[in-house]
Amino acid sequence: MTGTMQADLLIRGARHALMLDAELRAGTGLDVAIAGDRIVAVGAALDVAADRVIDAQDHLVMPGLVNLHTHLPMTLLRGIAEDVDLQGFLERVWAEEARVMDQQGVRIGARLGALEALLSGTTTALDMYFHPVQAHEGAVEVGLRHVTGPVFFSFPGPDGLSWEQRMELARAWPAHLARIGGPSVPPALMPHAAFTVGTAHLREIAALAQEQGAIIHTHASENLRENDDTVTATGMRPVAALQASGILGRRAILGHGVQLHQDEVSELATAQAAVAHCPGSNLKLASGAADIVGYRAAGMCVGLGTDGCSSSNDLDMFAVMRLAANLARLVRDDPAAIAAREVVAMATLEGARALGMADQIGTLEVGKQADLILLDTSAPHLVPMRDPYTSVVFSAGRGDVAHVVVAGEVVVADGSPTRVRAREVIEAALAQVRTNAG
Amino acid sequence: MTGTMQADLLIRGARHALMLDAELRAGTGLDVAIAGDRIVAVGAALDVAADRVIDAQDHLVMPGLVNLHTHLPMTLLRGIAEDVDLQGFLERVWAEEARVMDQQGVRIGARLGALEALLSGTTTALDMYFHPVQAHEGAVEVGLRHVTGPVFFSFPGPDGLSWEQRMELARAWPAHLARIGGPSVPPALMPHAAFTVGTAHLREIAALAQEQGAIIHTHASENLRENDDTVTATGMRPVAALQASGILGRRAILGHGVQLHQDEVSELATAQAAVAHCPGSNLKLASGAADIVGYRAAGMCVGLGTDGCSSSNDLDMFAVMRLAANLARLVRDDPAAIAAREVVAMATLEGARALGMADQIGTLEVGKQADLILLDTSAPHLVPMRDPYTSVVFSAGRGDVAHVVVAGEVVVADGSPTRVRAREVIEAALAQVRTNAG
Repeated sequence: MTGTMQADLLIRGARHALMLDAELRAGTGLDVAIAGDRIVAVGAALDVAADRVIDAQDHLVMPGLVNLHTHLPMTLLRGIAEDVDLQGFLERVWAEEARVMDQQGVRIGARLGALEALLSGTTTALDMYFHPVQAHEGAVEVGLRHVTGPVFFSFPGPDGLSWEQRMELARAWPAHLARIGGPSVPPALMPHAAFTVGTAHLREIAALAQEQGAIIHTHASENLRENDDTVTATGMRPVAALQASGILGRRAILGHGVQLHQDEVSELATAQAAVAHCPGSNLKLASGAADIVGYRAAGMCVGLGTDGCSSSNDLDMFAVMRLAANLARLVRDDPAAIAAREVVAMATLEGARALGMADQIGTLEVGKQADLILLDTSAPHLVPMRDPYTSVVFSAGRGDVAHVVVAGEVVVADGSPTRVRAREVIEAALAQVRTNAG
Repeated sequence: MTGTMQADLLIRGARHALMLDAELRAGTGLDVAIAGDRIVAVGAALDVAADRVIDAQDHLVMPGLVNLHTHLPMTLLRGIAEDVDLQGFLERVWAEEARVMDQQGVRIGARLGALEALLSGTTTALDMYFHPVQAHEGAVEVGLRHVTGPVFFSFPGPDGLSWEQRMELARAWPAHLARIGGPSVPPALMPHAAFTVGTAHLREIAALAQEQGAIIHTHASENLRENDDTVTATGMRPVAALQASGILGRRAILGHGVQLHQDEVSELATAQAAVAHCPGSNLKLASGAADIVGYRAAGMCVGLGTDGCSSSNDLDMFAVMRLAANLARLVRDDPAAIAAREVVAMATLEGARALGMADQIGTLEVGKQADLILLDTSAPHLVPMRDPYTSVVFSAGRGDVAHVVVAGEVVVADGSPTRVRAREVIEAALAQVRTNAG
C-alpha cells in the first residue's frame, strides 16, 4: 500500500457513475479523485486526501457532454430566423451577421454560448465560426474546452477576409492556441462546406491539416438542396467533393450528414470520418431525419451536436440526446432502435473519438482529463431511477446539472459559473445586440 | 375611477405576458391581479393593493400548461419498460402494476406525479388511472388541477373491479369530487380503449356521461396494431367503434390518435372530439408520428400530453412542446409547418377547449381561474429573447419555471412546492416501490 493519495478535488460517493470505460460500464457509490487537470483514481471509498471535496451521494457523475457541431457566437442571433429552411435561414443570418458580428460581437457571443453550454453540462464544443481568435478567447475565459479554428469560404465572408488572409490565419492557428491557453484542444480547420469552398481550396486545407495534425470540420449533406447546390458548384455531391479534395482523408467531422446515400455512408465509415448528428436543427429547418442507426451499423462514428442558436435554438445537449433517441425509433420504426447508454456514449465518447481525443476525454478513466458533470438526482422527475442511462436520456435535463469540472477546474458550482458573472455576460450580449442591430 | 383595487396576489410588471386571449396576443410590462381563485385585472401599472406581490420584471408570465393525456401514478413505474413497443410495454406494465399499484401506491404515485407536473409548469392534467379516488386525493393535496375519473375495462383490471363496481364508482364520482375538493374540474369517465372495453359497455359509459355532463377520455389509434386489435375485437377501427357506441358524441378526448385515416380525422373534427398528441411517447414506443398540422387544418382540436412516465419517461410539457413543433416540421417537410405561438396555444388554450374548460383556463383573461406560471428569463439560454413564444417552445425548459399559481394559490414558489415537502413525497414513492416491488 502506498498510503493516502493526495488530490486537488475529490468527488465522494457518487450515487451513480456512468461511462466508466469504453464498454460503457456504470457503477454506484464511487469516488473520483482529480489531481491537476487529470483523473487519478476512480473507485469505492478511495483513501484520498483532497483540498476540495464534493459530496456526491445525491448525484450522478458522468463525463461532460461533447457538442460536436455548434456555432457558439450565434447565441446573439437566437430566434432571428424562425419558420424557414436552411437556405432561408442562411439568407437571414448572413445579413444579420454583417451587422452584429464584428470581432467584439464574436467574443461576446462565444462567452454567452460557452456559459450556456457549461451550465447545461457540455464541457467540450466543436465550434465553427469566423473571428476564431476572439471566439476562442471568449469561450476559454468562461472555462469551456473549446475546439475551433479558422473558417473558410472561397468568397469574402462576413469577416471580409481574402483567401490568403484565411490561410495565413490557419498557419498561425497553433500559435494562437498556445498563446490563448485554456483546456488542451487539437488545432482545427473549418471549411464551411463543399458548396462554399472550391475544390482547389479544399485541397489546400487538407494539405495544411496534414502538416499541422489538425482536425477538419465542415458542413455536408445537411439537406437535399445543399446536395443539389454542391452538384451545381462542383459536379459532385458533398461526400464526393470532400473525398476528391483529400478532406475525407483527414478523418473529417461532417456537420449534419442528413441526406447521405448508402454508398456515401460506407465511404465515410471507411475513411473514419464522423457525422455530428444535430436532430434539433435538422427537424426545425425541415432538413430531414438522419438514419444514425444505419450509420453506426455501417461503422461510422456518430456524435451529437446542437448546431447554432439561430437554428436550434439553444445549446441543450440533454434535449439533443432525448431527441436523437426518439427520432432513431421513428426512423427505424423500432422501439429498440438504440439503447439509452448508446445515446449517452454518442454524446461523450463518440464525440471524443470524432475529435481524435478519445484518449483524453469521454469516459471517467484514470489518466484522462478531468472533464465531468454532476447531476442532482433529487428532482421528482428522476424518481425512481431504475437505470441511470435511461434516466439521463429520457428524464434528466440541463436543469439537473449541479457541478461542472473541466480540466480539473470546477467551472460551475451549485449551478453557477465560477469564472464569470452570468449577469455581466448576459448584459454584454444584450448591449452588443442592441448597439449593432441598430 | 373606482380607486385602488384590492387583490390577494399581484404579479407585477411581467417582462413578457403570453396568451392574453384567444387571439394569442402577447404583451410586455403587464400586471396580473388575482382575487380568490380568479384573475381580476390584467394591464399596465394597475392600481392594485395586494396581500402578496411577485416582482416579475425578470419573468415571463403565461397560463399554466395543460397536460391532456397522462397517467400520473405511473411515475412509480418510470423506466420499467425500455426498448419495447406499445404491446410489449403493456405486458410489462400490467404485471408490475399488480404488484406496486394498490390504493396506497396510486395515491403516492399521483402525489409524485402532481409534484413533478407543477414544478415543470403544468397546472392542469387529464389523468387516467385506476383507483381514481386515491389518485385525485394525492394530486389535489399537492395543488394540481386534476381532471380524472373512473377507468373502465371490460375485464377485471389491476384494480380487480367488476363492471358493476366500475359503474357504481362512476355514478358516485361527482360526489367524490365534491368531497375531495381542490381546484374545480369537470367529472370524467375513462374507458381505457375500444379494444379493452366492449361496445355495449361503451354505450353505458356514453349514456352516463350524458347524464352527468361528464367528459370522456380514452385511448384511440395509438399504433397500427391497436387498430388491428380493435378490428379483431369489434369489427371496427377505433374511431368507428367510438362513434358506434356514442362515445364520440360526447366530445371525447382521444389519447394519442397517431394512426388515423383522413376520413376519421374529418369524423373526429365534425364530432368536436379532440386528440391529445403525445409525441414523446409516440416516438419512444415507435407508434408513429401524428400529423397534427393536418388534424388542425381539418378543424380538430389538438392538445398536448406527456403520457405516463413508464413510456415517456417524464411529465415535461416543455419537452413535449418542442418535440411537437419539431416533429410537425419533419412530418410536413415544412420548416413553417406550425408557428411557436400555435404550439403554446395547443399546450394551454387548446387543452382547455378539449376539456370543455376554455371559459375557465387557458388564457390570462379577467374572470378566468388564476392558473399561471412565471418563467425566470435570466438564464443564458433565453438571451436574447426576440419573440417570447419562440423562446418558450425552442429555448425554455422546466428548469426555468420559478413560480406556479393554481386557482389563485401559489403552489410553487422559487422552484419549491408550498403544500408538500418534495423530499417526503419522494421518499414515500421510493418506499412504495421498494416494499411492493419486493
